[in-house]
Parts: sequence; structure tokens; C-alpha cells
Amino acid sequence: MPFDPAGLKYDANGLIPAIAQDHATGEVLMMAWMNAESLKRTLETGQVTYWSRSRQGFWAKGETSGHVQRLVELRVDCDRDCLLMQVDQTGPACHTNRRSCFYTAIRDGQEVITSDPIA
Amino acid sequence: MPFDPAGLKYDANGLIPAIAQDHATGEVLMMAWMNAESLKRTLETGQVTYWSRSRQGFWAKGETSGHVQRLVELRVDCDRDCLLMQVDQTGPACHTNRRSCFYTAIRDGQEVITSDPIA
Repeated sequence: MPFDPAGLKYDANGLIPAIAQDHATGEVLMMAWMNAESLKRTLETGQVTYWSRSRQGFWAKGETSGHVQRLVELRVDCDRDCLLMQVDQTGPACHTNRRSCFYTAIRDGQEVITSDPIA
Repeated sequence: MPFDPAGLKYDANGLIPAIAQDHATGEVLMMAWMNAESLKRTLETGQVTYWSRSRQGFWAKGETSGHVQRLVELRVDCDRDCLLMQVDQTGPACHTNRRSCFYTAIRDGQEVITSDPIA
């Protein structure tokens, strides 16, 4: 069946959550949002482009930092309301310069930082 | 620092996206939603409880199916607006009886089913 970005379920703001996972290690790197047009650009260019809710604009990941995400495989979930992108991540995915945004663990009721920024 | 579920950033409906990942294989199993109380229940019981948007009620994963998710580690992202749960998943995570909800790949513009329901 041909894939149509318009056939996904977007929220009231026209957005769908998109999870980025390192295609080689399986590490979950980040979660951000897309609209149909940013997904279309991602598929066309092979470089992940999100929709920035704070800036209300397209967010070509790594455009200024160089920390681009090359799309290796796109997955859609059973409800068609969430995306999983297996990516080839250049450098850190997180704005804190860490590989993953999910560096804070909750252990015994305490927040524990599990990774350092990449030097 | 002590962790307080109330200190997370919830959306206008009081919800936060929660990604479940197989703690052993790294496979991303599903994404669903939590509110502060469902997260509190998850931490207290060690069994993942979501908030069902369609039923507007707590969704103790596997309560009827037996396909429970035991929480191994909870992670919070840098923006405090998304959760990653590394879990020990009993059986399939997906309501289609597949291990993961992300079984549809987009390849060369076509939807491709990548896994079968567990027999």
C-alpha cells in the first residue's frame, strides 16, 4: 500500500510525535514533533526535519549544529498516531550536547544523571 | 535531587508521552500517555499504568490481557516533557498481538508489514 503522510492521525495542532532511535545501538535519542509537511521533507531529503512548537517553524535537525539525523527507516505505529525513526545520528542528539535527551534516570526516588556532555 | 511527578511538563490535558522500550533488546514497543497519577502508580507498583485518552481512565497495561510491563528504569528527557520507560514486557505489547506497535515500515513509498502476530 502506498504511504501517504496525510493518512496519519495528527493532533489538534496538526502534529504527531516522532521518536528518534539510533539504528545501530537501539538507543532512544529524542522525541519531537512533526506535521505532514515536515514528514514529507524528511522522506524527500532523507534528513530528519521536525516542527518546532516553540518557534512555530520547520526544524531541520542539525541545520546549525551539524548534528544531523539521517533517516534509515521510518516506522508507523498500529494506531497511526506515532512515528519511530531509526536514524544515523551525527554527534549528540540533545541540545545539552549529550548523545540522548533521556540522560536523567529515576532511581530510588532520586534523579540521577547517567551521561556527560560529549567533549 | 528527589523526583516529583508534579515537576514534569504536562500538556493542556495534563498528559505526557511515555515511550516503552524493551530493556534487554532495545526494541521500541509502544508509545502511550500518562498523567501525574498514572506515573505515581507506575512508580509505586513497578507495573506500567497509562492514561487511556479514549476511555478517559487509568490503563493498567496487561490488566485484562496479562501482557504486563514491569518497569526496569524510568528516564526523563532534557525538557521534562517526555518519558522513556525501559520495561520487561510479558508477551506482545501491541493490541494486534505483535511484540511492538511499530511493525509498519515505510520503504520506497510503500507500507511494509515487518512482523506477524505472536501465535
